[in-house]
Order: sequence, then structure tokens, then C-alpha cells
Amino acid sequence: MQKVREIVTNILKEHAVDTVYFVGCGGSLSGFFPAKYFLSCEAKKLKVGYINANEFVHATPKEIGANAVVILASQRGDTAETVKACQAANEKGAATVGLTFQVPSPLADSAQHVILYEFGDDSIVENQKTSYGFKMALELLHQIEGYAGYDAMVKALGSLNEIVVKAKKDIVPFAIKYAWEFKDDSVIYTMGSGPCWGSAHQESICIFMEMQWINSSVIHSGEYFHGPFEITDKNTAFLMMKATGRTRELDDRALNFINKFNNRCMVIDGLDYGMGELGWCSEYLDPLFYNNVIGVFNNLLADARKHPLTVRRYMWKFPY
Amino acid sequence: MQKVREIVTNILKEHAVDTVYFVGCGGSLSGFFPAKYFLSCEAKKLKVGYINANEFVHATPKEIGANAVVILASQRGDTAETVKACQAANEKGAATVGLTFQVPSPLADSAQHVILYEFGDDSIVENQKTSYGFKMALELLHQIEGYAGYDAMVKALGSLNEIVVKAKKDIVPFAIKYAWEFKDDSVIYTMGSGPCWGSAHQESICIFMEMQWINSSVIHSGEYFHGPFEITDKNTAFLMMKATGRTRELDDRALNFINKFNNRCMVIDGLDYGMGELGWCSEYLDPLFYNNVIGVFNNLLADARKHPLTVRRYMWKFPY
Repeated sequence: MQKVREIVTNILKEHAVDTVYFVGCGGSLSGFFPAKYFLSCEAKKLKVGYINANEFVHATPKEIGANAVVILASQRGDTAETVKACQAANEKGAATVGLTFQVPSPLADSAQHVILYEFGDDSIVENQKTSYGFKMALELLHQIEGYAGYDAMVKALGSLNEIVVKAKKDIVPFAIKYAWEFKDDSVIYTMGSGPCWGSAHQESICIFMEMQWINSSVIHSGEYFHGPFEITDKNTAFLMMKATGRTRELDDRALNFINKFNNRCMVIDGLDYGMGELGWCSEYLDPLFYNNVIGVFNNLLADARKHPLTVRRYMWKFPY
Repeated sequence: MQKVREIVTNILKEHAVDTVYFVGCGGSLSGFFPAKYFLSCEAKKLKVGYINANEFVHATPKEIGANAVVILASQRGDTAETVKACQAANEKGAATVGLTFQVPSPLADSAQHVILYEFGDDSIVENQKTSYGFKMALELLHQIEGYAGYDAMVKALGSLNEIVVKAKKDIVPFAIKYAWEFKDDSVIYTMGSGPCWGSAHQESICIFMEMQWINSSVIHSGEYFHGPFEITDKNTAFLMMKATGRTRELDDRALNFINKFNNRCMVIDGLDYGMGELGWCSEYLDPLFYNNVIGVFNNLLADARKHPLTVRRYMWKFPY
């Protein structure tokens, strides 16, 4: 938190910040969803944006200027459109913060402030990309508007790693069951509500589509009854990451219906794995939990399908 | 425009508006995407939100209060969670505007201001739900911040109907071709960028999933290379509604790639059907064009599949 606190303090010395934008591509955009959701819920004055980097480059919002902080992420720091977005934000006079796993890198060179995050099985949850995005949102809100829940949230962030490490062990039998249940499916829907929509979206695009070549789509639990539910039949594969916070009722409503017509819905519930210990903070930290714990299932699914998570058809092989 | 102008004028007499929220479910949420996109791009001060009605009810953003306008839509005015969202916004002191095709209705009874929109094949484009959402955004921006493009946009809105009517005739042969091309597909991806993402999302959830029971997902053109493109093979069915504005380069980049590995991508391009006449305004009005013109294809697809657009498995048949 100290690093984030210093960056925000320094930014606020030079910028009268009223706008916070999260910018990236793929998993480096969806990783910002918890931060975006938190600010959309909790901020009273701050404006928040969440946008694909190339769209940001080509249709830069007019509110981007000296009063904006633009926070960007790229794993290797070399995603061309994210680097361009950073340069565009710099040119508009905004403060820029680059989150990356690689320094030096073009993003680290372009961003005014750089956060090197941890990545991989042994990384501490609080030091991962998604957590740093969230901590930037928390710190900006607290320093700009004041946030009564700040201390509780900082404490909860510190408790998260222990919950995740234990959950990754406890979930193994359940994950094995569904890895084998879903291994031959050609379509898998992911579901979520509140900030968990971001985790469900990320699982859909980064794991099922990108790493397993399985057709997939995310369905917001609150949107399920307004179109998407008509694709439900007894064989449809669903994966829900259940909200532990205020939107849990949306998930339960969808599940009550799905369970009448289908019994192939894999539901992961943070409350079964200790997220309840975090009290009201759990709602906002759910994605930091799910993004890690789902990895156990992803590895088992890849094994069951004999399709390693590292195989690509196009990425790194063709220009685009 | 007169009706919208009066509503906004009246709201601003009583509210110091700094926040605009668009709230709905399914097609009544996605119909607001052009309005949301427009304000996200053009507003310098106004905050904008776009949220599922039930999420709004359960996790009402803290910025909802006397300085907010909450704009909600429901076709029959009876979507339970949208009516509840309107009541929640009223209780917080926000101004509420209900868009509906049915008056009287619970939404029309709850909203402080009501707009009765036109719907169906013979409706005037400017008087449809999506257009009224957009006009609310335009008028709010203009009256609150001043908007230099206001007159041009009002004029463009007035020209749109003629373009759409002609396009719906001109597109028939192309639509027939793809209705037969796609009739046996079990998965169809939709694609778009900028405001066209909203039209592509709507086609995915309301037509393919809801009305045709075809698995579907929307892919933002700028996100395509960051995960989703790995599902591309020579047989994957894609439907792109091509942006005529600043994000067109994102679509072209995706298409250049898709066309190397796949020849089953149906691309509708507004520039082939007169949208160029609208100059810079076309970017923002693209969805009002596509939402109408795609209906020609939808009807032909339903015919080719012998699956009427009105058939439902669950809606109106089971409680949920």
C-alpha cells in the first residue's frame, strides 16, 4: 500500500483529479474491473472510465486532461495500443500510471509512475495486478473524497492471501469434478454479478476462448432473464463465481432458475472458502479471490482436455 | 426533440445535475449504450453510468442523489426490477425519466417524467427507444455544459429515418445470403467497436440467444486480439456491424486478420448504405442505424431456420 500511497500523493500535488480511467486490453483490462466497480459504487464526485486501450487511442474521451489519472496495464509492458494510450494520455496532460510485470518495457518507459506487480502461483495476492488496480482506486478515493471504509479495506486486503492459499487447496476435489464434467463441452457460459462480472468475463475470454479454444460468453446474472436464459437446456455448461456481497440475490435468482432446468452449473462460492471473514469488504475483493482460485480448475481442465494453457493458434505466430 | 427539451429544462429547474445514469435490463439496457458512449466521449464534467436495473437496486451507487438523473426503459413498463430501480432513484431524490411503449404502466406511474416511444417496423427511427435515450443524453449535455455539435446532431437525427428505410430495402439480397449461410450454425459471434459494441451485444443477447437459441457472444473489435481471436477457425460465424466513425480502424484491423483465416464473416457497413451523409455525426448514430437494419437479416434468419422470432422456451411460461 505504501508504494500506491506515495504515487497518489505525488499525483495529487500536481493534478486536481476529478477523473480516473482504467485502460488496457483483454485480461489487462478485465483486471481493472474490480477497481472500476468499486469507484462506480463508492465515489460521490470522482468520474470513472474503463476502456479498451485502442478505443482510448482512437476516440479519446474529452474528459481526459490535466484533471485525469489514467491507469494502464500490460503484462510485458509491450502491448502496442496500451503504450500508445499512455502516450496519448501524457499528451493530454493527464497523470499516467503503468502496471506491468516487466521493467524496463515500453509501458514502464512511457508511464509517469510505474508499479511492478507480482504474477504467478507464488505471488502474494495483494501484490498482483488486479490488487494494485484496486488499491489505486481505493487510495485515490480516500485521498480525494475521504473514504470511511479505508482502514477496514486495507486490513482486508492484507488478510486475503491466507484465504486464497487455503481455498486453492480446499477446492481441488470440486475442481477435479468439474474439469472432467466440462472437458468435452464446446460452449461454456460464465456468470457473475457486481465485481464478479469482471472475473467471469476474464475466465471467458482469457481461459476458455484464448487458452482452451472453447466457445464462451459471460452473462451478467441480472441480465440472464432478459434474453440469455433462453439458451439454457439441460446440457448447457455454466460456471458461476458467486458474489458474496449485495448482488448475491441476483446470482441466487439465476441459480434457482438454472437448477430447475439444468444440473451442469459449477458454482464457486467465496463464502464456502472463508471470504465471509472479510465482512462487508468481501464484495469488492471477490474478484481478487476468484481470479486466483479459478486457476486450480483451469489447470485441471487443461490436463483433462490434454490442451495446455500455453498453446496458441495465432498469438506470437502471426502478425496482427 | 421538443418533448426531450421540455423534460430536461424542467429537470434542470429543480436539480443541479452532475450525474446521468442509464438503467434497464436486456435490450432495454443495451438500447442505452449509444447514449452512454456519447456522454463518455463528449462530456467534460458530467458523470455517466450504465447499469443493469437489479444491480442498481441492490448496489445503488452512492452518487445517486438529488444531482442525478436516472433514465430507465422497459418495453411494457412492467419489468419488476426496473420499476424498483425507478422507485429507489426517486427515494434518493434523483430525477427519473421512464421510457416505455406502454402507458399506463408501472414504470410510467413511477417515473417523474415519461417518454412514450414508437416501436416496430413502421416506427420513425428518431422516435424509437434508443433514439430517445440518445436525445436525452444530447439535450442534457447541451443544456448543462453546452455542446457545439448540438445543431448538427439534431439535424442528423432527422435525416436518419430516410437512410434506414432505404437501407432496409437495399440490404435484402445480402441479408438473404447470410441468413442461409448462418442458418445451421450453433454459435455466432457478433463484433463491434465504439457505440456499435452496443448493437452487437444486443444482437447477441436478444436475437441469437433469446429469439433463436443460438449460442452467442459479443467481441469488442479492440479486444479481439487479446484472447477471443484464438477461437477463430475457418468455420466460425462472425457478424460485424462496422463503425463509420473513429473506431473504424479497430474493426478493420480485426477484419484483416479474420479474412486471412475465415471467410464466414458477415460485415454490415453503414457507409455502404448512406451513413456517410451524416458526416461526423454518423459515429454516434451508427447503433440507431444498425438496430433497425439488422432486423431484415433477423427475420430472414428466423424464416430460414423455421424458428419464429416470437418463440420462447421460458419467457412468459415460467415464473422467475
